[in-house]
Amino acid sequence: MTIFSSIFKPTLLIDEEKARKNLQYINEKISLQGKQFRPHFKTHQSAEIGEWFRESGISKITVSSIDMANYFAENNWEDIFIAFPVNILQIEDIVHLSSKISLSLMFEDLETVSFIDNHLKNQVSGWIKIDTGANRCGLKNSQFEQILQLAEKIQQSKNIDFKGLATHAGHTYRFNNKEEICRVYDQSVNNLLEIKNNLLVAGIPKVEISVGDTPSSRLVDDFGAVNELRPGNFLFYDIQQYQAGVCKLDEIAVSVVCPVVAVHPDQNEVVIYGGAIHLSKDTHRYTSSMNAYGLVTLPDQNGWDDQKVFGYMRSLSQEHGVVVFSEGIPENIKSGSLICVLPAHSCLAVQEMHTFINLDGEKIYTMLS
Amino acid sequence: MTIFSSIFKPTLLIDEEKARKNLQYINEKISLQGKQFRPHFKTHQSAEIGEWFRESGISKITVSSIDMANYFAENNWEDIFIAFPVNILQIEDIVHLSSKISLSLMFEDLETVSFIDNHLKNQVSGWIKIDTGANRCGLKNSQFEQILQLAEKIQQSKNIDFKGLATHAGHTYRFNNKEEICRVYDQSVNNLLEIKNNLLVAGIPKVEISVGDTPSSRLVDDFGAVNELRPGNFLFYDIQQYQAGVCKLDEIAVSVVCPVVAVHPDQNEVVIYGGAIHLSKDTHRYTSSMNAYGLVTLPDQNGWDDQKVFGYMRSLSQEHGVVVFSEGIPENIKSGSLICVLPAHSCLAVQEMHTFINLDGEKIYTMLS
Repeated sequence: MTIFSSIFKPTLLIDEEKARKNLQYINEKISLQGKQFRPHFKTHQSAEIGEWFRESGISKITVSSIDMANYFAENNWEDIFIAFPVNILQIEDIVHLSSKISLSLMFEDLETVSFIDNHLKNQVSGWIKIDTGANRCGLKNSQFEQILQLAEKIQQSKNIDFKGLATHAGHTYRFNNKEEICRVYDQSVNNLLEIKNNLLVAGIPKVEISVGDTPSSRLVDDFGAVNELRPGNFLFYDIQQYQAGVCKLDEIAVSVVCPVVAVHPDQNEVVIYGGAIHLSKDTHRYTSSMNAYGLVTLPDQNGWDDQKVFGYMRSLSQEHGVVVFSEGIPENIKSGSLICVLPAHSCLAVQEMHTFINLDGEKIYTMLS
Repeated sequence: MTIFSSIFKPTLLIDEEKARKNLQYINEKISLQGKQFRPHFKTHQSAEIGEWFRESGISKITVSSIDMANYFAENNWEDIFIAFPVNILQIEDIVHLSSKISLSLMFEDLETVSFIDNHLKNQVSGWIKIDTGANRCGLKNSQFEQILQLAEKIQQSKNIDFKGLATHAGHTYRFNNKEEICRVYDQSVNNLLEIKNNLLVAGIPKVEISVGDTPSSRLVDDFGAVNELRPGNFLFYDIQQYQAGVCKLDEIAVSVVCPVVAVHPDQNEVVIYGGAIHLSKDTHRYTSSMNAYGLVTLPDQNGWDDQKVFGYMRSLSQEHGVVVFSEGIPENIKSGSLICVLPAHSCLAVQEMHTFINLDGEKIYTMLS
């Protein structure tokens, strides 16, 4: 009897030991350099998994939505950074949250600062979002005048304490070797330092720097002049990280177990019950000219075989996945067999699957369960 | 006061009138040709919306999972085709369903037929899944010997009534004009007819043909020698269908309303609270060399402006979306404004969002709510 004898449909399996080891590694690395570790909880979205972090001495966290902040606040997290541009339509929730916990918000325009300041009854921390090259959110180095105005506006506000500059160097995800990822990290931090120094010169007395992405938090040896790191994905990793050289195959801590429903030996393919609604449509590099939707391994007695990739997911529709076993379909695979998909992007697989099962068969719930 | 004054975060809006009109059009078209209409309910996954179909005289439906079959069986649907290869691990559910309703299953190998036949206590209908070019599931024309063996095996079974050949010509989704879609449909049906004729010659007395995809059910004038059609997406359509020339912009019946959280006038872009967890990471053709994650329009008094596309979603992360307004950001758009994203793929947007709101502000629940 293994855990697999009780799995009948797509199931999100978590190897708790691997996840805790991943957490311990990054936690120690960041702490040893004297930096604030503020892990991003959007990767797991689970109060129970949150407790593993608390056991590791962590008390400050990052989330990506007000709903997620509400959930973790209800689960006794008292210092939460919403690393997402403020959605002023949810002002009631923001006001309520700020009355209960230490709340950090991220700004990039003056009107939002005024709006929030005028509505708050309690203090929050305010960060300016900087775009160091990810090209998604935030103000750029070239917009220094706006950054300075914003810093001054926050400083003059009644209810927002100016903290500093926050970025997500999401462009580290576009590279696939340590050298390039470290180069992007250094560029990004230098960019922030330049802005910080210019703010100091302009009379802003104190400017902290908060950064957050898994590739650099794993690969960069010296975090340099940052105060805080907010990675999240490091807890589980996934094939995007594996293909980028960020983690090893045996460090990936989640897999989606899927039943085989059709076998096509002439094409070296099987069809699985496991599609976009289980794994998301996110992809990873498979070869230089081809993307895939995850890599496939097989169940073993201790979870899944974490030493060998057997196949890749070439296509994904709503509930179907097609797996290619380039070296031939393993002999024991037939209709009704289970295979384990290491997801392209673990955060989105968790979002789709809602609930984990650990290797002892126990459920671990999330805010989506 | 419009519906938009009560929307504070990403919300799946449904224009019921448009959806009912889309349903009426396809229902009449299929019925007028004397074909069986067996709509696919994976598009909406909602018992309440299912009732609109019942009001239109529909009693037979298609689903894509055993869980979905259970949900609709509990909601008084008594004739359900699970258009997905049989997952033998869910045999208990299959046996239970077959005792309650008329159940149709799809097969492509002998072992699964034996397994199911040995476990059933009630009759089900059995279809052979044929791959006419979509290259996902099923047996190909070139595998006629296997098809014949399977037909004979089903005929000899105690509990499975052989019905015929089923396909999903999913490759119609790869084209973007009526001519090509109709050509693929004809090829697919001819392929099935050839198999059917060979089965008749080989002594199988009766072989029906069931097909199902939205592009051809909308665009093909004469459905030819098929018995049954199983499209689903036609209810809402989406930008994939619009870009393929299958529907008009003003026929799209769902949009995801999203708050604007940052405005970047120098780039003609805004950032919205609306990402992969609201829209899925599915894409559509935007230009010949570029894909996008949906097209953007603006709220109006009757729902959304269905005559004009204002922008496109160029990128999507877990909760962020980036919208490009190529002709400049509309004047009234600022932080806290709402925009309407017409999704790349409406079925997956429903899967992500779980619950609809209609234009009167009433919730419509799904099996995911």
